[in-house]
Amino acid sequence: MAARIAILGFGTVGSAVARRLTGPASPHDLRLTHIFDRRADEKREALRTGGITWTARLDEVLSSDADVIVEAIGGVEPAAGWIRAALAAGKSVVTANKQVMALHGTSLLTLAARQGRQLRFEAAVGGAMPIVRAIGDGLTGDRITSVTAILNGTTNAVLSRMETSGCSLTDALREARALGYAEADPSADLDGDDARAKLAILCGLAFGLRLDPAQIPARSSASITAEDFAQARRLGGTIRQLAHAGYERATSTLTAWVAPTVVARTSIFARTKGPQNAALITGDHSGETGIFGVGAGGDATAVAVLSDIVAIARDRAAIVPPPVLTSDFRLQTSDFVLQTSDFHLAEAV
Amino acid sequence: MAARIAILGFGTVGSAVARRLTGPASPHDLRLTHIFDRRADEKREALRTGGITWTARLDEVLSSDADVIVEAIGGVEPAAGWIRAALAAGKSVVTANKQVMALHGTSLLTLAARQGRQLRFEAAVGGAMPIVRAIGDGLTGDRITSVTAILNGTTNAVLSRMETSGCSLTDALREARALGYAEADPSADLDGDDARAKLAILCGLAFGLRLDPAQIPARSSASITAEDFAQARRLGGTIRQLAHAGYERATSTLTAWVAPTVVARTSIFARTKGPQNAALITGDHSGETGIFGVGAGGDATAVAVLSDIVAIARDRAAIVPPPVLTSDFRLQTSDFVLQTSDFHLAEAV
Repeated sequence: MAARIAILGFGTVGSAVARRLTGPASPHDLRLTHIFDRRADEKREALRTGGITWTARLDEVLSSDADVIVEAIGGVEPAAGWIRAALAAGKSVVTANKQVMALHGTSLLTLAARQGRQLRFEAAVGGAMPIVRAIGDGLTGDRITSVTAILNGTTNAVLSRMETSGCSLTDALREARALGYAEADPSADLDGDDARAKLAILCGLAFGLRLDPAQIPARSSASITAEDFAQARRLGGTIRQLAHAGYERATSTLTAWVAPTVVARTSIFARTKGPQNAALITGDHSGETGIFGVGAGGDATAVAVLSDIVAIARDRAAIVPPPVLTSDFRLQTSDFVLQTSDFHLAEAV
Repeated sequence: MAARIAILGFGTVGSAVARRLTGPASPHDLRLTHIFDRRADEKREALRTGGITWTARLDEVLSSDADVIVEAIGGVEPAAGWIRAALAAGKSVVTANKQVMALHGTSLLTLAARQGRQLRFEAAVGGAMPIVRAIGDGLTGDRITSVTAILNGTTNAVLSRMETSGCSLTDALREARALGYAEADPSADLDGDDARAKLAILCGLAFGLRLDPAQIPARSSASITAEDFAQARRLGGTIRQLAHAGYERATSTLTAWVAPTVVARTSIFARTKGPQNAALITGDHSGETGIFGVGAGGDATAVAVLSDIVAIARDRAAIVPPPVLTSDFRLQTSDFVLQTSDFHLAEAV
């Protein structure tokens, strides 16, 4: 087991992966050889390790002898095109990019399989929480009927802060930014776009359904107030941004939504604080299986990226089967009813 | 993806796997071809599906065209020898056998790799809860420092029943038997032997340590009384059988034990009821990751077995790397102090 690694993008995730690969606890046969960043010249000082080629030219990475390329650019383009180019150049790819996997996952995984290479994406959903493996691998022996989850660490940090401090969303957001959990523009997190992309990926893995994230009904968490929390408390709960998908195979009907939701105080979701993520998966034969862990931040995401690199290094010829997804289902939107004074009361664990 | 499956042993797990493979929701390209059982003639009536060869002769299975052999015999011998024979005959093997994997896992996995075949064992720990994949695959990108878990569904069903009903262990055990969660002789469950074998497997996956289950300090749950529960309640907790392992790499010191433990009422362990299992995994970079699910019973175990069969069918040449385990560590036993009036007070989630 040995592999040469190149990283595309030296931002939060890319730099965390680089630090792990060059740090004392790195698996010694994984070697970071290239870092691509548009501002390579400015950033190279951040990593005081020799033997790494910094470049602002993608073709220098694609024509290198790196075995695995870590895509940590984010956004749909140029990331999707670069993953395609890396696979075409005979590299395996590890990505943390939920937008790319939600929109182009099937075609990229098909290309990877055709090339005899791997595209792995544990980091695209749930940070360090290994939910892609849990659903796509560990529970393939069941028929999964629903997934209910907290998939956005930023929104969860904001909402759980409002819960404990009684502060406004604006104040909670300011604190989350200071702690590195929120970006300057948090709208993709609060409005649910981030969670919708992740939920679409999970619908592919769990139900074999091709779902455009934009089709998933969503309600923003941006207007939640301290008074909403007070009201949720009176109902015996608190508020979390939940992503839910349930599939009824008999009628080919999918119910899916992302919304701020009142969850029972005793539920696993109420107990999910700060940047944590959590998911409850229901199956015909296994009942309820749950998973939780740190869902945001460079360190947690780097754990998932490194796990994928190790998987590739262990088995270079491993087959990551491209999903066979169907669009032949009905998306139920009328169940997206916000009950109990504008919130859905979810009873869980 | 297609595979021909043979099952060794038509007991609780074997029959559940057979029902799934011949049921309406079976992945259609998995085909059950052989069932070996010493009492094949008596049991064949239990499965009303044609095209399956029932036999009481192992060599008939080994010389068949089955691709995957499911070992559902239990116990160390002859199961270990039969797995060895199956691998030698060029079959891949899926096992639910924690005793075999704890004692002979490394040599069997090495044999499988040498044969270019796979030995998979998700079902050996945690039933449907995919903890083998979570630790052995999803979190390989971290340095795991501790695992604390409920690994025995029978004992958990008994203890959580005592908690809710205030009844004696004898009465709780009788109920667990009636529900199919406990065997006639539950001593391997209550005394901790079952959890010790599973904990030894997890120590190999998480820390790379070779640990004889018999070395793990254990305290039996068989003498827990209703009064112990009353006392735990006064401490703000309840009682669960926990399995714990923590590894300090700087000093190569492993702390490991299985014991009835007072856990905080708000902890994930107190919330684990009936035959459920749960685990908290701590890593240097990912913090705390948790997983829970149904840990006992034929249906839940069959989910894990089927997931392993699907993994083999998807990628016949997949490499399941044999672990490289060291015995060069010190097993700390003095930390096995039962605090707080004979119980250790575990604070968790």
